[in-house]
Amino acid sequence: MRVAFQGEHGAYSERAARVCFGEGVETSPSLGFRDVFEKVAKGRCSHGLLPIENSLAGSIHPVYDLLLEFGLPIVGECQLQIIHCLIANPGTSLESVRRVYAHPQAAAQCERILREHPEWTVFQVYDTAGSVRMIRGNPEVAAIASSDAASLYGMEVVREGIESDPQNYTRFVVLAREAIPDAAADKTSLVYGTQNAPGALYRTLGVFADRGINLTKLESRPIQGKPWEYYFYVDLSGPVELDEVIAALREHTTMVRVLGRYRAAAARDASGSKPESDTPSPPPK
Amino acid sequence: MRVAFQGEHGAYSERAARVCFGEGVETSPSLGFRDVFEKVAKGRCSHGLLPIENSLAGSIHPVYDLLLEFGLPIVGECQLQIIHCLIANPGTSLESVRRVYAHPQAAAQCERILREHPEWTVFQVYDTAGSVRMIRGNPEVAAIASSDAASLYGMEVVREGIESDPQNYTRFVVLAREAIPDAAADKTSLVYGTQNAPGALYRTLGVFADRGINLTKLESRPIQGKPWEYYFYVDLSGPVELDEVIAALREHTTMVRVLGRYRAAAARDASGSKPESDTPSPPPK
Repeated sequence: MRVAFQGEHGAYSERAARVCFGEGVETSPSLGFRDVFEKVAKGRCSHGLLPIENSLAGSIHPVYDLLLEFGLPIVGECQLQIIHCLIANPGTSLESVRRVYAHPQAAAQCERILREHPEWTVFQVYDTAGSVRMIRGNPEVAAIASSDAASLYGMEVVREGIESDPQNYTRFVVLAREAIPDAAADKTSLVYGTQNAPGALYRTLGVFADRGINLTKLESRPIQGKPWEYYFYVDLSGPVELDEVIAALREHTTMVRVLGRYRAAAARDASGSKPESDTPSPPPK
Repeated sequence: MRVAFQGEHGAYSERAARVCFGEGVETSPSLGFRDVFEKVAKGRCSHGLLPIENSLAGSIHPVYDLLLEFGLPIVGECQLQIIHCLIANPGTSLESVRRVYAHPQAAAQCERILREHPEWTVFQVYDTAGSVRMIRGNPEVAAIASSDAASLYGMEVVREGIESDPQNYTRFVVLAREAIPDAAADKTSLVYGTQNAPGALYRTLGVFADRGINLTKLESRPIQGKPWEYYFYVDLSGPVELDEVIAALREHTTMVRVLGRYRAAAARDASGSKPESDTPSPPPK
């Protein structure tokens, strides 16, 4: 078992991989989201773990688009509480910071503190953990990343918990090359295109409502080459008679694809323990 | 009349402002989206112009969130065809490029060419036009921006039309401090929160479907402090009996707010002419 994640060692995605698969799991750092998909598609990694949504900043769009492009099945999910730290060279004070290197997602989640410090110039970098490596030796520059990343690169946490709201969770999906039938699967992800007619989306949602199926997420993404037309990504919670639902959806859609059936995960903190201990959440193995 | 836009002179948003308001309009460059909202809220600019959606890369989430936070009304919209150029120092060839400075949105829209050139390292910058200024004097670095920006900063277009699909349009919204009643308004933007119950979103869309109202856009955004709960932003096309619709929505929602009523705009190219000349599109004044 080898799990590809986006970012460098110390990334939140690597933490999520350890929480999801166990501390000893072999991880494979990857430059971009596409590289994670490719490693799984080519069999170089058994699994890929990708952030798909953050409770403060919202959906991570490129991952949605790549799910459709690659057609790799979602076989599990994992939620991690994200606690961001402002990290700087040892001995640096908050007052001496002039520049902040931040992943756009991390910056979005820490918008409040960034706004309270207009004297900081924010530079976007692709990787939270990588940004910590980049600040070494420069006392004017801080990074936003996990305390893991600070330890890994010998840097210091100047302030912990700088996210704008403590209810900050990221949901990750686990990909494999082949779908694994799981009798305990209680979540289904679909994507479909609606017919270009008034009420088309409404009628597709009626397919779920008529059957008492709860929709936990609806995301729209543009269709390339068709301006202002959309694919809709939905997550369905609980048991679903999938063949029957798909047949009903086909009456109102131009395309339907199952992205995965898997077990819904409860939120966990970075240590892997569940803040709400009564919620069942078997991690995918 | 003074129109605030995000970015430096030469930005696509500034082009959109000229297309929308006329070539002679006074424009006010602004560091971030928030600055545009603040300039309008404080009366320092009469209008703000903000990109809200691109037909390839999708919605521009921070603008959605700021619309709700500031409560400034949308008084118009404007669509612009976006033609991206790879820009470098005069005399530079495509082969000598090693690094590319790109706005994350521009990079998303030019994903194909960036993937075809794995030898290019892509650096994210906050501003398309600003990235052109940044490459001056460095022949190994290219930027992605408009031909306008290349001329403005004395740089050269190495390749034009590098967007992954030529059907590349950005839709901009025009903000003002006060709503302007317009009898010809044919588009309505709303935001609402649904009750936390199965089928709640479906029932809100039923309010539109039952009245034959066409939904041209549905966007979900996370509610801060309530993980995995969402606000829904909708655009309604055509005439709407707004008071009656709002009353019907209130039965299924926790909050409803009108973001604006305004005239829908047709797509225009950067010169301001309309590719589809039969589509009426009076720019807001």
